[in-house]
Amino acid sequence: MARIVQKYGGTSVGSVERIQHVASRVERAVLAGDELVVVVSAMGKSTDELVFLANQITDSPSKREMDMLLTTGEQVTISLLSMALQARGIEAISLTGWQAGMQTEASHGNARIESINNDRIEAELAKGKVVIVAGFQGISENGEITTLGRGGSDTTAVALAASLKASRCDIYTDVTGVFTTDPRYVKKARKLHSISYDEMLEMANLGAGVLHPRAVEFAKNYDVPLMVASSMEDTVGTMIEEEVTMEQNLIVRGIAFENDVTKVTVKGLPNRLDTLSKLFTTLSENQVNVDIIIQNQYDDEHVNISFSITQSSLKGTLAVLQEAQGELQFEDVTFEEELAKVSIIGSGMVSNPGVAAKMFDVLAKNDIFVKMVSTSEIKVSVVVQEIDMVLAVEMLHEEFKLAEEVEEAVVTV
Amino acid sequence: MARIVQKYGGTSVGSVERIQHVASRVERAVLAGDELVVVVSAMGKSTDELVFLANQITDSPSKREMDMLLTTGEQVTISLLSMALQARGIEAISLTGWQAGMQTEASHGNARIESINNDRIEAELAKGKVVIVAGFQGISENGEITTLGRGGSDTTAVALAASLKASRCDIYTDVTGVFTTDPRYVKKARKLHSISYDEMLEMANLGAGVLHPRAVEFAKNYDVPLMVASSMEDTVGTMIEEEVTMEQNLIVRGIAFENDVTKVTVKGLPNRLDTLSKLFTTLSENQVNVDIIIQNQYDDEHVNISFSITQSSLKGTLAVLQEAQGELQFEDVTFEEELAKVSIIGSGMVSNPGVAAKMFDVLAKNDIFVKMVSTSEIKVSVVVQEIDMVLAVEMLHEEFKLAEEVEEAVVTV
Repeated sequence: MARIVQKYGGTSVGSVERIQHVASRVERAVLAGDELVVVVSAMGKSTDELVFLANQITDSPSKREMDMLLTTGEQVTISLLSMALQARGIEAISLTGWQAGMQTEASHGNARIESINNDRIEAELAKGKVVIVAGFQGISENGEITTLGRGGSDTTAVALAASLKASRCDIYTDVTGVFTTDPRYVKKARKLHSISYDEMLEMANLGAGVLHPRAVEFAKNYDVPLMVASSMEDTVGTMIEEEVTMEQNLIVRGIAFENDVTKVTVKGLPNRLDTLSKLFTTLSENQVNVDIIIQNQYDDEHVNISFSITQSSLKGTLAVLQEAQGELQFEDVTFEEELAKVSIIGSGMVSNPGVAAKMFDVLAKNDIFVKMVSTSEIKVSVVVQEIDMVLAVEMLHEEFKLAEEVEEAVVTV
Repeated sequence: MARIVQKYGGTSVGSVERIQHVASRVERAVLAGDELVVVVSAMGKSTDELVFLANQITDSPSKREMDMLLTTGEQVTISLLSMALQARGIEAISLTGWQAGMQTEASHGNARIESINNDRIEAELAKGKVVIVAGFQGISENGEITTLGRGGSDTTAVALAASLKASRCDIYTDVTGVFTTDPRYVKKARKLHSISYDEMLEMANLGAGVLHPRAVEFAKNYDVPLMVASSMEDTVGTMIEEEVTMEQNLIVRGIAFENDVTKVTVKGLPNRLDTLSKLFTTLSENQVNVDIIIQNQYDDEHVNISFSITQSSLKGTLAVLQEAQGELQFEDVTFEEELAKVSIIGSGMVSNPGVAAKMFDVLAKNDIFVKMVSTSEIKVSVVVQEIDMVLAVEMLHEEFKLAEEVEEAVVTV
């Protein structure tokens, strides 16, 4: 008997029929002898509908009241799924975030989990029940209903799996697993049998929207084996765990990409110790999120600093810089829009110094000009023109042989 | 400054516009200097929609999961109303049943309130906030979400008013007050300025669906002055309180009526001490709710017992009786359908023994045959044919001069 946490997202529980389908999957796991905790999101579009209601009332609803409002979404799903299981003769009980002991910090809209008091869940599991927990929600020390923000239900599931010492956390979603790159753009994209936490973290952070990075980080920190699989099909998904022995010969595991990138260059900044710190403190204090940063010398006394931001934050960023021009003492600001970021990811890179060079070579051969570069131990990101994005991904996918099926460890779960 | 509990039902908060309207009413009370606790129901048809969802999942959802599901309805309303007030610059906070300290017994679907822990509400009121509380819901000792059953939000409001020692509990609804009889049937029906708890209790129990009897009983037991008024119009409502000095000269205060009555007669039961007890224990053990009961002797050794039930429970009742015929030793069962109950109510009746006689006289003069009679200190009920119901009510309304405006104490609130 394995203790397993399953998580079903909004699309997977988007209708009565889908909920029945999820119930049949849970039933199968119960009949196989597993001990189950099931985390669910709000039904399909119901969160959007609640947000719409709130926006009809006011254009600036308080975060505290939004949490009060939105958490009803998951509460509806848990009760319906519990009913569906009971109708199949399976003992089940639904628990809200606060009933499940999901303690969070006392902030609204994006609270972090502080601890989980498992007593209630353990008691229900001990009675042989399937425990259905509302994702995305928790309770603060002072009894306020909180939400975990984006990717919240994934995080609920992983945190519960860690806290309950589950042998696995299964994230069921509308894709069949983690792919070498986005299959909607690259036909040859291949589903990975397994991937490491760090690789998944880079993939998740870089726009491969399968799993929220926060959930992956949680899984990595608490060593929770994650599986991403389809809630609709019965195919093997992708395992995310620390050791991925059989694929270590693969240098690049996946390619992530995103458009909507804008490059801003601040020219002629004084070449001083505190220049970088002053510039980025100013930006972060004004809620400008910066991704890639590049610094290069301009002359002995001046440097240019470039950074990438999202398209939508350009206007605000320029206003912040203009405001601070006197203090930062730069000469000029330029920007370049309609860019995209393409990243190759793989833990094998650490010991393969030629990978970045190979990437640049492929791009150059295809006349794709690289605007910015950023590297970490397990990834290389380049910023290119948006119109070159898909071609870049396809060529890199080809070059690093990602479409080819390699002998992988069969995931036995 | 008065401390007031206001309650708005489902129709009054049935849309974003209606919620804004409620917010404007609350705002007015706040500006008038009152300290406010506002109890709300689920928006309009939302409870029905949730029930529909549950019934699509299973035709026998567990009560515990239904409570989990249905309580989301009020949670949506409290957050939206709180937002609407905040948007008007009024400090407001929403509280679920469990946050408001509404402790109930550990049963689902129809739990009784055991106690209220006011700490949170008092703390929020002390901060100058309007406190919006979800009606209909509570929490049991073991942390389960419970509901109070039918009329639950009225009961929540009255219980809070009692517990918070509010000077008044205002029930805002889609009628403008309590009438001498149902104005949809009797054009001359007149709104009462005030009525006593006991009279209201009889009115409420007898089908004048303005206020749930449970809430009235609670108000009576804890001496909470209740006001029933329209949430849409700015008219004076009806006060329900212990002393109604100015109207005591009125013998009959109102006329309640309901159709859907069926009379069942069990014939030839043994004339023994335990006959009544055995018959009605059998019926209640089988969930048959009996209203009026009449016993009359048949011969020395036998009695006939008649009782009234609702039309819908006839089939079940007959089955129960058939099953128990051997044990109860009766000879035969007959029944009569398409009946109605008409009741005159007034605390002045106690000291006016001729009231019932006058009622029978009016009915006889109009060729309305009385099938059953039941009396209490403050009411007389008769069962008549359903086709005679409205005529009976009109004639009684006329005879007891209920349409005439009397000099009443003006309700100053």
